Amino acid sequence: MTKEEELILTRAREKFMREGFHRTTMDEIASELRMSKKTIYKYFPSKEKLVNAAVTLLQKYIANNVTKIIESDDNAVLKIYKIFEFIGKIMEKVNEKTLEDFRRRLPEVWQRIDDFRTKLIQENLTTVVNQGKEEDLILPYPTSIIMAIYVAGIRAVINPEFLMNSSFSLTEVKNIALDMMMCAVLTDKGKEIFNKYKQGN
Amino acid sequence: MTKEEELILTRAREKFMREGFHRTTMDEIASELRMSKKTIYKYFPSKEKLVNAAVTLLQKYIANNVTKIIESDDNAVLKIYKIFEFIGKIMEKVNEKTLEDFRRRLPEVWQRIDDFRTKLIQENLTTVVNQGKEEDLILPYPTSIIMAIYVAGIRAVINPEFLMNSSFSLTEVKNIALDMMMCAVLTDKGKEIFNKYKQGN
Repeated sequence: MTKEEELILTRAREKFMREGFHRTTMDEIASELRMSKKTIYKYFPSKEKLVNAAVTLLQKYIANNVTKIIESDDNAVLKIYKIFEFIGKIMEKVNEKTLEDFRRRLPEVWQRIDDFRTKLIQENLTTVVNQGKEEDLILPYPTSIIMAIYVAGIRAVINPEFLMNSSFSLTEVKNIALDMMMCAVLTDKGKEIFNKYKQGN
Repeated sequence: MTKEEELILTRAREKFMREGFHRTTMDEIASELRMSKKTIYKYFPSKEKLVNAAVTLLQKYIANNVTKIIESDDNAVLKIYKIFEFIGKIMEKVNEKTLEDFRRRLPEVWQRIDDFRTKLIQENLTTVVNQGKEEDLILPYPTSIIMAIYVAGIRAVINPEFLMNSSFSLTEVKNIALDMMMCAVLTDKGKEIFNKYKQGN
């Protein structure tokens, strides 16, 4: 990827997240970047192609960072906490209407986002839950049951339809879901660690 | 409904739950009831009609009993506990293959079961969660978020596909889901009450 291509993608991604896909025009992206539309079209022949490439780049960024957290020497509670904080920081930049915009106008893109995060949660959270059980920070429930409930629970609330009909922000919903999920499976020792991190924030 | 019709329905329901829809023949039902198939066909012209009527009767029985628990003077924790125990007792009679049998061979019936329980959980659990918050037994999380996570979580694990691919019984999965759900939202006072009921069992 050229520097120019990456610059276009990064800016377009920020704009799509903040203002939604539908409301953002190629003219606006070109003008913000001080580039001609022709330059942008050279790399991305349509807005759909641009948004798809932007989502791919964002997913790579997320996957890399989550892998770094997973591969660190932290305990399981801190890993889960850091993953949620990291995802939360990205979500803070997403306008609430953006996800709904995706779901309605670009259902294939929303499907890609949903598949990506289901896989991300499934693979990484499974590893951390098993680590947490070994560390005596997570109760010895079967990992498959914990995972099925967690994946379904997260998908149910971090979801355009739910958020549009809710009076709570993405960040509020994320924080409550994290609290509930942690309380559901942590041992006393795990809870102590979790509360310490939360207060330190 | 005549006594005879009710008798047929009750026995057919037990047999369907225990042995599955596909494996149970009208001949077997007739022979168990010491009735002619003609008598059964008078009320239920097909096995599909019989299973649909049996499911309706079971749903009425469940709805009546859940309503009784909801309308009692018990505290919220005891109500949730009693509802799960009651549903658990019914589920113990269901062969694990029966749900899968429904899902594959009678998808409309499985859809009816799934819709019914989603509505049952949604309506009744919402009432009890609000009661529990007033009683200081449930943490003051927004009820809509608790409910969305709970409905999705229950549907994800009390589910033919999950159970068929899992090495845990319906009852084991139900108990773990209840433990996780309770721990996620109960106050310390709520947890104390919950543990007392569990030990008394």
